Amino acid sequence: MAVEFWFEFASTYSYPAAMRVEDRAAERGVAVVWRVFLLGPIFRDQGWNDSPFNVYPAKGRYMWRDLERICGAAGLPFRRPAIFPQNGLMAARIACWFAEEPWLPRFVRAVYAANFAEGRDISVPAVLAACLERAGQEAPAILDRAARPEAKAALRARTDEAVRRGLFGAPSFLVGDELFWGNDRLDEAVEWAENALAARPADR
Amino acid sequence: MAVEFWFEFASTYSYPAAMRVEDRAAERGVAVVWRVFLLGPIFRDQGWNDSPFNVYPAKGRYMWRDLERICGAAGLPFRRPAIFPQNGLMAARIACWFAEEPWLPRFVRAVYAANFAEGRDISVPAVLAACLERAGQEAPAILDRAARPEAKAALRARTDEAVRRGLFGAPSFLVGDELFWGNDRLDEAVEWAENALAARPADR
Repeated sequence: MAVEFWFEFASTYSYPAAMRVEDRAAERGVAVVWRVFLLGPIFRDQGWNDSPFNVYPAKGRYMWRDLERICGAAGLPFRRPAIFPQNGLMAARIACWFAEEPWLPRFVRAVYAANFAEGRDISVPAVLAACLERAGQEAPAILDRAARPEAKAALRARTDEAVRRGLFGAPSFLVGDELFWGNDRLDEAVEWAENALAARPADR
Repeated sequence: MAVEFWFEFASTYSYPAAMRVEDRAAERGVAVVWRVFLLGPIFRDQGWNDSPFNVYPAKGRYMWRDLERICGAAGLPFRRPAIFPQNGLMAARIACWFAEEPWLPRFVRAVYAANFAEGRDISVPAVLAACLERAGQEAPAILDRAARPEAKAALRARTDEAVRRGLFGAPSFLVGDELFWGNDRLDEAVEWAENALAARPADR
C-alpha cells in the first residue's frame, strides 16, 4: 500500500509536504506515488478566480505567517514569493507526464525550492530547465515532450481524477480511498498506509 | 501568558479542541482564556450564507470523515448532528457574558457534547438549561441574564474583536498577537504560550 501525494506547484502548503514526504514515507517503509494536479479548475468550480488566500485576505495573512512557522520548525528555507500564486502549468505537465521516472521527486523539490525559497518565477522555461538539470536531466527534450497535446491531455485527465476522488485542495494524500488534506496530515497519511501494509495477508 | 481559545458552538473542529484545551494547557502550566464568538457575520462578509462545509460539498464530506478520525484518535464520542450548522446564538451569549466564571468551561463542554455526541439541538432553551445544570448552575437566572441587551451587545463586540485581531475561522488560538487556526494547532499554541512564559523575566 502506497501513499499517493497529490500536489499543485502554486500551493504554499504543498511546499513543506513535498520536501518531506519521501523521507517520512521511507522511514516507515511506505512507497510514494507522485500525483500532480491543477487547483485552478477546481477553484473556478467553487467560484474563485484566484487563490482563496488572495480572495480572503485575513486567511492569506495567516497562511503566510503559519507557513513561515512551519518551514522554521522543519528547517526549510522560506522566502515569500513576489508573485502569488505562480503559474505552475508547464511544471505540472512535466511532473504529470514523467510521474513514474526515478528523477521526478528531485525535479518536484527543485521547483518548490525555486518558488518558495529562491524567489524564482516557475513559469519561465529557463527556470524549469535548471530544475530539470538539478534532477540530472537534459532539459530540452523533456520540455518539448511535456508541451505536446498528449501531455496536456494527461494533466487534464489527472485533474479530473482528483475531483472524482474527492480532492478539493492541496496537498492531499490518498491511501486507497482514504483522503487526508493538508501538510498537517502528512504523518497521519503515511501511518495509515503503514497500518494498511501491516494488515495485509502474509503473501507480501 | 495565557492561551486565548476562540470558539464557535456550531464549529465542528471546535469540538475536539474545546474538549481537550484545558487539560493540554494545564499539563504545561498555561492558563486558558475562553473566548466565544460568532462565525456567521464573518462568513457573511466572505459571501457565504451557510457553513463553507455546506457551500463546498467536497470539503464538507472530507470534514465529517476527518472529524470522525480525530475524535476516534482522541477517544471522544462523536455522532454527526442531523442539523448542521446548529444555531449556537443563545449558547454563545451565555458563554460570552459569563466567560470568566469558573463553571464556564464545564458548560462549554456540555454544549459541545450535546451538539456533537448526543444529537441534541443546542438552540432549545431546555437543552441549554440541562448543560448549565451539568455545570452546577441554576439555569433560569443565567438564561434570563444572557438574553438581556447588554449580553447581546457583548457578544457582538467580541465578534468584532475577533475580526479586528485577524480571526477568520474556528477554533483559533491567540497567544498575544500570535494567531493559530484550527484544532490541529492546539498543541503548538499551548507550547507557544509556555515558551512565552519561560522567556519572561524572573518577576513571575
